[in-house]
Amino acid sequence: MELPGVILDISSISPLRKPDHDTVYDMLILGGGPAAMSAVVYAARKMINLAVITLDFGGQMNETAEVENYLGFPSIRAGDLVTKFKEHTISFDIPVSMGISITEVKRKENTFEVLLEDGTSFFGHTVVFATGKRHRPLTVPGEKELVGKGVAYCATCDAPLYKDKKVVIVGGGNSAFTTALDLLRLNAEAVVVNFIIGWQADEALQQRVRKFGKVQFLDYHEIVSVEGKDKLETVVIRDRRAGEEKKIDANGLFVEIGLLPNSDPVKKLAGLNKHGEVLVDCYCRTNIPGLFGAGDVTDVPHKQIIISAGEGAKAALSAYDYLIEKSQI
Amino acid sequence: MELPGVILDISSISPLRKPDHDTVYDMLILGGGPAAMSAVVYAARKMINLAVITLDFGGQMNETAEVENYLGFPSIRAGDLVTKFKEHTISFDIPVSMGISITEVKRKENTFEVLLEDGTSFFGHTVVFATGKRHRPLTVPGEKELVGKGVAYCATCDAPLYKDKKVVIVGGGNSAFTTALDLLRLNAEAVVVNFIIGWQADEALQQRVRKFGKVQFLDYHEIVSVEGKDKLETVVIRDRRAGEEKKIDANGLFVEIGLLPNSDPVKKLAGLNKHGEVLVDCYCRTNIPGLFGAGDVTDVPHKQIIISAGEGAKAALSAYDYLIEKSQI
Repeated sequence: MELPGVILDISSISPLRKPDHDTVYDMLILGGGPAAMSAVVYAARKMINLAVITLDFGGQMNETAEVENYLGFPSIRAGDLVTKFKEHTISFDIPVSMGISITEVKRKENTFEVLLEDGTSFFGHTVVFATGKRHRPLTVPGEKELVGKGVAYCATCDAPLYKDKKVVIVGGGNSAFTTALDLLRLNAEAVVVNFIIGWQADEALQQRVRKFGKVQFLDYHEIVSVEGKDKLETVVIRDRRAGEEKKIDANGLFVEIGLLPNSDPVKKLAGLNKHGEVLVDCYCRTNIPGLFGAGDVTDVPHKQIIISAGEGAKAALSAYDYLIEKSQI
Repeated sequence: MELPGVILDISSISPLRKPDHDTVYDMLILGGGPAAMSAVVYAARKMINLAVITLDFGGQMNETAEVENYLGFPSIRAGDLVTKFKEHTISFDIPVSMGISITEVKRKENTFEVLLEDGTSFFGHTVVFATGKRHRPLTVPGEKELVGKGVAYCATCDAPLYKDKKVVIVGGGNSAFTTALDLLRLNAEAVVVNFIIGWQADEALQQRVRKFGKVQFLDYHEIVSVEGKDKLETVVIRDRRAGEEKKIDANGLFVEIGLLPNSDPVKKLAGLNKHGEVLVDCYCRTNIPGLFGAGDVTDVPHKQIIISAGEGAKAALSAYDYLIEKSQI
């Protein structure tokens, strides 16, 4: 579960209490993105005895430059919004385990055991599973350094920043073509690059995109590297037929080659859909009583920060109702 | 659909364009609470041709004193948060009809007609119905004046402000007892007052509340008036058996006698549950294609600002997908 992007400087967060390995918490909140942080706010205000287990705070937000669609903040740097979320979250005196991956969530009678990579465990009566998704990165030279500086993974988040600009979109499926549509409607000039021969997107969507004048399609091409000093300047691609390399001057590179839900820890326990997302109902309940799911790791539609924050609150309140019902608090 | 509470000074919002009665908009967003405002943010960023029809901005938020559970704002006056939401919403140059009630939403072939109290109509290819709920007020002298100054309608929002304080809770059902539980767990002293004889809340929940020492139950009592200069000081109640009046010194009065969804305009069109809430699926779709529902007017669980904002985004994006699918944009 290695996450690309900026990892928060853990040393700046002090003094976070560590959770106790011998306590059975009423609620374990797994993850550190907006769903998990909103769950903490709701659970902490209900005075639930909880612990948080996460790699970092922010999750995919750390891969975004600017956020303009979280109601209340017309425009804010993603890093600043993560800081605000984090401050709100840790304003409650809650124990947090950071930086150690979760390997598995097991159910043992009426409690859950959360196993970590270092061989230790935490225990809880309920679990809010909100470990998010990670964008499948290209893993080409220069990509990591230019995340949030031209390299983007979310059109809904970042497309408006590329109005009238030139962008390269990597991918051949619906998300790549939806990204292209979003950008073309903003009068951007787009080059869509696909690794394999042909295109996987729905024909209707393809036709819609092809109507625009300022779009070019290059299938059977791969991205070799991305270059730029403080921001993206050039995308180097290779024609896989001819083997030739070519440089494209571009302001943006949208990587749309898929997302991977961080659902491995519950894959033996909970129901997943074919994308590996945890199946939840409108109450954020999984098929396992006491196990709730929230945010991008679930099959909730339209992965967005505000939606995840709402789902996190929902999951925490549903878990609270479950605890009340079981008379465990 | 008269809403209690503070109505924003409309004159301070300028210059809002008025929607056009002859245009068929791609999306009509009905309501002005967090669900509707978040829907505007998402739809406007997709450059959808939209119009907003609402009585005010803020909705039920105008009845709350302090918000401490909207991720990103550890503590903010509800009015200030409404201002931030409103500024974000009207930062997009969108037409807004304000102050005139919606009487009915009708479907005519592939478009919707939204009829207003003044006899005029607006037209749209899709509708995001997010008209919210209103708390059933007591309608006793002093109540309206002390909203947000001791008179509260939402324990999840406001209970933490009454830690160690004395409160009166009005109502006898689950929401009244859940409110009592929230407050008692915060070491508040509580008096629960019910208009009728006995209590309607689940027995298990009642037992839980009765275990606390600092709680008193008065059934068959009514609230006569609430008094206080700048904040609530006294609640006047009447024993309906003996007819006697009595004064209770209290810091807070939680009114939990029910919520009314503002679903009248779609009651002939969409499926409602027994509470009158619009039935939606996890995509915010109603049973009518093109009609989406979001926030407290729907059957979404756990009515909360952050949840409504998430649902508004979901509804707008689902409506966008619908428009794309129908090739209407």
